[in-house]
Amino acid sequence: IDRPKMHTFVQPDLATLQRRLETNPFAMWLGTQLTAASQDGVEFRCDWRDEFLGNVARGAVHGGILATLVDTAAIYAVIAAIGSMAATIDLRVDYHGMARRGAFKITGTPVRIGRTLSTAESRVFDCDNRLVASGRGTFIRLDEPITRS
Amino acid sequence: IDRPKMHTFVQPDLATLQRRLETNPFAMWLGTQLTAASQDGVEFRCDWRDEFLGNVARGAVHGGILATLVDTAAIYAVIAAIGSMAATIDLRVDYHGMARRGAFKITGTPVRIGRTLSTAESRVFDCDNRLVASGRGTFIRLDEPITRS
Amino acid sequence: IDRPKMHTFVQPDLATLQRRLETNPFAMWLGTQLTAASQDGVEFRCDWRDEFLGNVARGAVHGGILATLVDTAAIYAVIAAIGSMAATIDLRVDYHGMARRGAFKITGTPVRIGRTLSTAESRVFDCDNRLVASGRGTFIRLDEPITRS
Amino acid sequence: IDRPKMHTFVQPDLATLQRRLETNPFAMWLGTQLTAASQDGVEFRCDWRDEFLGNVARGAVHGGILATLVDTAAIYAVIAAIGSMAATIDLRVDYHGMARRGAFKITGTPVRIGRTLSTAESRVFDCDNRLVASGRGTFIRLDEPITRS
Repeated sequence: IDRPKMHTFVQPDLATLQRRLETNPFAMWLGTQLTAASQDGVEFRCDWRDEFLGNVARGAVHGGILATLVDTAAIYAVIAAIGSMAATIDLRVDYHGMARRGAFKITGTPVRIGRTLSTAESRVFDCDNRLVASGRGTFIRLDEPITRS
Repeated sequence: IDRPKMHTFVQPDLATLQRRLETNPFAMWLGTQLTAASQDGVEFRCDWRDEFLGNVARGAVHGGILATLVDTAAIYAVIAAIGSMAATIDLRVDYHGMARRGAFKITGTPVRIGRTLSTAESRVFDCDNRLVASGRGTFIRLDEPITRS
Repeated sequence: IDRPKMHTFVQPDLATLQRRLETNPFAMWLGTQLTAASQDGVEFRCDWRDEFLGNVARGAVHGGILATLVDTAAIYAVIAAIGSMAATIDLRVDYHGMARRGAFKITGTPVRIGRTLSTAESRVFDCDNRLVASGRGTFIRLDEPITRS
Repeated sequence: IDRPKMHTFVQPDLATLQRRLETNPFAMWLGTQLTAASQDGVEFRCDWRDEFLGNVARGAVHGGILATLVDTAAIYAVIAAIGSMAATIDLRVDYHGMARRGAFKITGTPVRIGRTLSTAESRVFDCDNRLVASGRGTFIRLDEPITRS
């Protein structure tokens, strides 16, 4: 639980991270696209799908979809900061309100980057820019490069 | 934050809860089926889909899928106990290991049922009966009956 | 789960909040002092006590002390934003590293203020300004004014 | 994140764990006593102190005290199961209701014991045997024996 090893660190660029995301089947089903990435955080866009609903009558997005968006943005904030892949140890999500039908914007921000374990947080905004969910997770660094040959 | 109102309570049966689940588009996409339900807890089965993967090379299920299973079982444990619909306030998920390809079994158990807010926990087992994720959530009672006319 | 009622809102000042904190026996045992407060967040200082240790040999502060600091700053961020008292529904704390012996600085920031339920987050810094813990909680508004006659 | 190493494991007995707890200054200030311990879980008792209050008028115990009890029971459930010391990575606490003035009983139960990371859950009961708080944490194994020479 201490300082990140920096000697092998190469800041991954947006295209590299987006290509990696495109190997992720569930992220592709969701339609998440990375729109910005740096060591200070990442930003995603995710278009609407009707299968996202958990309650048709109320028009409510399923909590699992919002949890997935929180997880995705937080883990990519860590991956962009450490320059290698990571796995989720645990995830916490707060639900703040109903999302209007339309594209989501999601931000991920590192809270604390460690050598092995890192924490990052996410915010999910609906197409009216209202905060509909937020949360944080703890992630473990994997010995797996972002780029796969 | 106190005792549940019991005067209007009618224990929902498995068929009623399963019919309700079938109105949930994301639960249907996942393929979750309710296999047992009582005031003491619920049990679900969920068949495998290749879109569940987050990492094809490692064969790892996306954390968002496991979070959705945790959320679904916990909220149905609350719905079965209170006899009306509920919404997730917040969720915590712990990831314990890789799931083998195959059907999941998920259990949901009430921790504490309140008049407005309730807490329940879930465990997700893979087809080898290994615990691959677990968690808990807090849920708010909605003024919405389980059966819709 | 929607917009805050603003019609009765009076921004509580620092002295009012600090006087309220001084009626809190455990906060007084800890020695927390409010050093800044606005609708955008709060800041606390907490001096060291040797009873804060959980492990003398490693010089590690007990996780429960850091959880208390996270809870205190987050709930006061909500109280300052809503202008009335609140109670903790749930709390999540991440531990980031060892604290050096000395005074803590703790910040609390609203994430989302609702009419009944609100979420806020906190960060705990040691005397070297290192982030040693952080977290977030969900809080319920109480019908209890900050000032007591 | 896989199977525990068992080759050096010696089940710690209650007296060994209680002696270790007695080296913990904050646990001693609280007055926690271990009353049962096995690989399947631990049980604590904690007598009342007036400094536990967060709100004198409502007679409410401070959330930080209940978080400390949740943390203590969960980490000792892990320590008893792995036979060495551990540190808290993160903690989640749910608050269920007001505690009556009197001794607390706290149970800690392993959810999943891993080689490095483990998850355990806790329940805090007041002197009327009402569940007043519960939660879970993730803990990392330390290279530190329970018994210190």
